Amino acid sequence: MRVAALAGGVGGAKLVDGLAALLPPDELSVIVNTGDDFEYLGLQISPDLDTVCYTLAGLANPATGWGQRDESWRTFETLSALGGLDWFRLGDRDLATHLYRTEALKKGQSLSQVTRDLCHKWGIKHPIYPMSDDPVRTFVSTRQGEVLGFQEYFVHRACQPEVTGFEFRGAGTARPIPEALDAIRNADLVILTPSNPWVSIGPILAMPGVLAVIRQKPVIAVSPIVDGKALKGPAAKMFHELGIAPSAAAVAAHYREFLTGFVLDAMDAAELDKIRQWRIIPFATNIIMKDRPDRARLAREVLDFGETVLNRSQ
Amino acid sequence: MRVAALAGGVGGAKLVDGLAALLPPDELSVIVNTGDDFEYLGLQISPDLDTVCYTLAGLANPATGWGQRDESWRTFETLSALGGLDWFRLGDRDLATHLYRTEALKKGQSLSQVTRDLCHKWGIKHPIYPMSDDPVRTFVSTRQGEVLGFQEYFVHRACQPEVTGFEFRGAGTARPIPEALDAIRNADLVILTPSNPWVSIGPILAMPGVLAVIRQKPVIAVSPIVDGKALKGPAAKMFHELGIAPSAAAVAAHYREFLTGFVLDAMDAAELDKIRQWRIIPFATNIIMKDRPDRARLAREVLDFGETVLNRSQ
Repeated sequence: MRVAALAGGVGGAKLVDGLAALLPPDELSVIVNTGDDFEYLGLQISPDLDTVCYTLAGLANPATGWGQRDESWRTFETLSALGGLDWFRLGDRDLATHLYRTEALKKGQSLSQVTRDLCHKWGIKHPIYPMSDDPVRTFVSTRQGEVLGFQEYFVHRACQPEVTGFEFRGAGTARPIPEALDAIRNADLVILTPSNPWVSIGPILAMPGVLAVIRQKPVIAVSPIVDGKALKGPAAKMFHELGIAPSAAAVAAHYREFLTGFVLDAMDAAELDKIRQWRIIPFATNIIMKDRPDRARLAREVLDFGETVLNRSQ
Repeated sequence: MRVAALAGGVGGAKLVDGLAALLPPDELSVIVNTGDDFEYLGLQISPDLDTVCYTLAGLANPATGWGQRDESWRTFETLSALGGLDWFRLGDRDLATHLYRTEALKKGQSLSQVTRDLCHKWGIKHPIYPMSDDPVRTFVSTRQGEVLGFQEYFVHRACQPEVTGFEFRGAGTARPIPEALDAIRNADLVILTPSNPWVSIGPILAMPGVLAVIRQKPVIAVSPIVDGKALKGPAAKMFHELGIAPSAAAVAAHYREFLTGFVLDAMDAAELDKIRQWRIIPFATNIIMKDRPDRARLAREVLDFGETVLNRSQ
């Protein structure tokens, strides 16, 4: 079964890791959000791409989900002591990725080229695509009237400001990577991994042409919300601040226009009927991925559920 | 005695360190070559400024003379493993300096402002001035017809290409830091530290207005060449390739137009008469600085010699 997975950061990376353990490279393509990308200390940083790649390469820090394992912080400890710009902390090994990528981009490579190159060097066999080579930048509008760059909101302000909306600057004219669009076109199944619907999956869907190809495919989403709370990050807080009670069903509703199936946690089984009413096929299981075996287990269940959905929709 | 010292990298930094141990901050100003500065991996690197500052701050690596002590190389080891640009290796702690400086320059600070700021943070009390806030870039012309940026020649090509000349791009219009020029004007004595006459002291003297103020001062140079060999770096090789037999006297001759006194090694005492013929007062002693006490000892001798020179020239 050929799968195209859309992913943001930690949650998405975990499910992608499970899928990559089960599917050969020609049956899984991953399209990654770049709306979180930003320039910091002159470095081009692509947090979601790095999280997905570090996870697949076995380099990710298991405690945080992002950054590298066995990391040290010599440069940033020294920079902090100097009073330098240190609100987004970069580990010593992680820094090498950013220096390498920034130099490659400056030399004229595209983000997808340098991503392919890095994946090759990290031994990643599955194709990982940034959603676009054109810059898309997520901005968060806040109740106080401020408009914050995503990392400014997410890391520097620790998601404290109350959110009133999102803007994906550049998305309206950004060209999706053609190979990524083809991967969706050729997929039997599209999986929206358990990433933030607003700021991780949203920017990918906001680019011209993406929804059009996705609408023609069976699409399964895996909920990033369990028991009304986000497994990681501000997804639940964002739903709440936007006037929507955060729940698995709220995620399904968010995607309902094109969603075929929806995977939610067994804890949220009470929402199954509501989801069925929207003609979305629900599937409840344990969706919390605590360790690596959990990822493959959930990926297996999602793929099996995908088979069911495909058979039912034929 | 108010002293203005002109310095390049390791040798100059050592003598400056000795002078700083003897003179209070209001009696010693240091003007540092920036012709070696370059952009690398998006970072603004000022090798001579860093060597002087690290040395004065007690942060310098005693084995190399440049870079920081207790340094680690996690970022560059990782970057090398990725196949990244690694011919100019930056340690993890050193990297913080470059990130800090680059960000400050990008925010609109001048090089002299960020240098003052860094010196303050490193606990350096003596004023250290980059020679200019305007970019001056040393290029090396080679026998093969190549024109190489200085670090390309010095580090990447390990000084291998045969030198035919130097170009200090930007020096003709670069404005010396006014406080640095004032420090020279107000000095009782100007000391050219044992740095490379061609590429360390040369760029400073090439800026408009510098020679004019220096000519009005008693000037002592300390030889960077002992027994026909450079204590460090390519100075002797450069003299040779430019058709001049490398020697302490050759250094004195290089500066002879404005030199009052010249300090050379006792090993080169045979050159004393030749130097006297140019109406330069020579002084022979042990000029090799192996350890920190050596620096203060030589600085003491240079200052005492300076007194003699001042008394003789009055």
